[in-house]
Amino acid sequence: MSEKVYKAALIIIGDEILSGRTQDANLNYLAKWLGMRGVNLAEVRVVSDDKPAIIAAVNAVRPLYDYIFTTGGIGPTHDDITADCIAEAFGVPLEIHPEAYRRMAEYYHSGVEAREFTKERQRMTRVPQGGTLIDNSLSIAPGFQIGNVFVMAGVPAIMQSMLDNLGDDRVKGGARTMSQTIAFDLPESVLAGPLGIIQHAHPSTQIGSYPQYRDGKAGVEIVVRAVDQTALDAAVEAVKALG
Amino acid sequence: MSEKVYKAALIIIGDEILSGRTQDANLNYLAKWLGMRGVNLAEVRVVSDDKPAIIAAVNAVRPLYDYIFTTGGIGPTHDDITADCIAEAFGVPLEIHPEAYRRMAEYYHSGVEAREFTKERQRMTRVPQGGTLIDNSLSIAPGFQIGNVFVMAGVPAIMQSMLDNLGDDRVKGGARTMSQTIAFDLPESVLAGPLGIIQHAHPSTQIGSYPQYRDGKAGVEIVVRAVDQTALDAAVEAVKALG
Repeated sequence: MSEKVYKAALIIIGDEILSGRTQDANLNYLAKWLGMRGVNLAEVRVVSDDKPAIIAAVNAVRPLYDYIFTTGGIGPTHDDITADCIAEAFGVPLEIHPEAYRRMAEYYHSGVEAREFTKERQRMTRVPQGGTLIDNSLSIAPGFQIGNVFVMAGVPAIMQSMLDNLGDDRVKGGARTMSQTIAFDLPESVLAGPLGIIQHAHPSTQIGSYPQYRDGKAGVEIVVRAVDQTALDAAVEAVKALG
Repeated sequence: MSEKVYKAALIIIGDEILSGRTQDANLNYLAKWLGMRGVNLAEVRVVSDDKPAIIAAVNAVRPLYDYIFTTGGIGPTHDDITADCIAEAFGVPLEIHPEAYRRMAEYYHSGVEAREFTKERQRMTRVPQGGTLIDNSLSIAPGFQIGNVFVMAGVPAIMQSMLDNLGDDRVKGGARTMSQTIAFDLPESVLAGPLGIIQHAHPSTQIGSYPQYRDGKAGVEIVVRAVDQTALDAAVEAVKALG
């Protein structure tokens, strides 16, 4: 009996990624984090800080996958419009969340950060109606979850803190996909024929072939992925025999 | 009179990116390459090695932007299905391209790579009908262009070689967007109010705010972007005055 396969999408929100100013690090981190939980990252979109683009992307993917994650655009400045867009995508009002407000007010009135709890800082406590908080141990301002959408910060350290605070009850996964890598000092094209035959003979595995060029020499890494250990082992043996 | 703004999308094809095995490097390189040519990268999608997903992504974005780039899936193995998908997306047959075939046959029969020009290697000479080659100085096997879609390799060094071989006649841009960065040793939220006012007063610029945490201290970089130098300078002056 085959177990449910859990799938997720990531929407990266930010002009700084699209302009090349910043190299995204969240995709790779989230992909591994999901993989450890038995959730496959199935699709990623990078969109600009543009309301219609964000709303369209969120509404396009949320019926397709179990979980949608977003990164970016939840800070205090004028270009932080993610919360507004998510509220609009769900057709609900955006409201001050009492618990988020309490935490932020406490933070700004404590010795940690003796500054004023300004109108702009209060923006960071707005959550679409019905949303629940995602805690942020690093800089307090929370992310939020509404439906199957998890809205997180773009700063990698904060995004990682938010993932740490998401328990298995909120992001439940299925069987983990295991993988094994076999490296060859051969051009990929030498293995292409037999690899196709092996893939055909082991349909419950995914066999990927990744050419590499190092010091002007062509090599290739073959990655075999499967949920079932026996199936994985059998395909790995067949690939190894090509060496 | 305002000049045409050129826009592009990138489709990254590859399970290895989505599984977290590989950190993509092509988005950032292409974003900068396009920026230097006056083309804005407006959207990126990362899709798996799955025929319907690739075809759907290509057909969704190609009417929306001036240029579509794809990376990945054009090698010799069974999981390299990009050429097949592009042909299907355009509704044209996939054919051996005579010039690609000639080059590859010469390469494999030369002293450089004295190996057989196998059936699998010949796969790499298939181009959708009507497509033109994108040269690859590094490993010979070309990419191709059909309509506004540019199909390139996923290996960064080869992808970069292909971009080097794309002249300004094939990827024409408009006015370059210039940018200037102003760094502050302040939490982002301190600047949020005045920044919103400055953005409102300088509508032909885009002002982005990027918080950073280094050694436990909060700082922020403000990036002002504009096509017009005078507009850029005026907004930069206003931002600097906040320090």
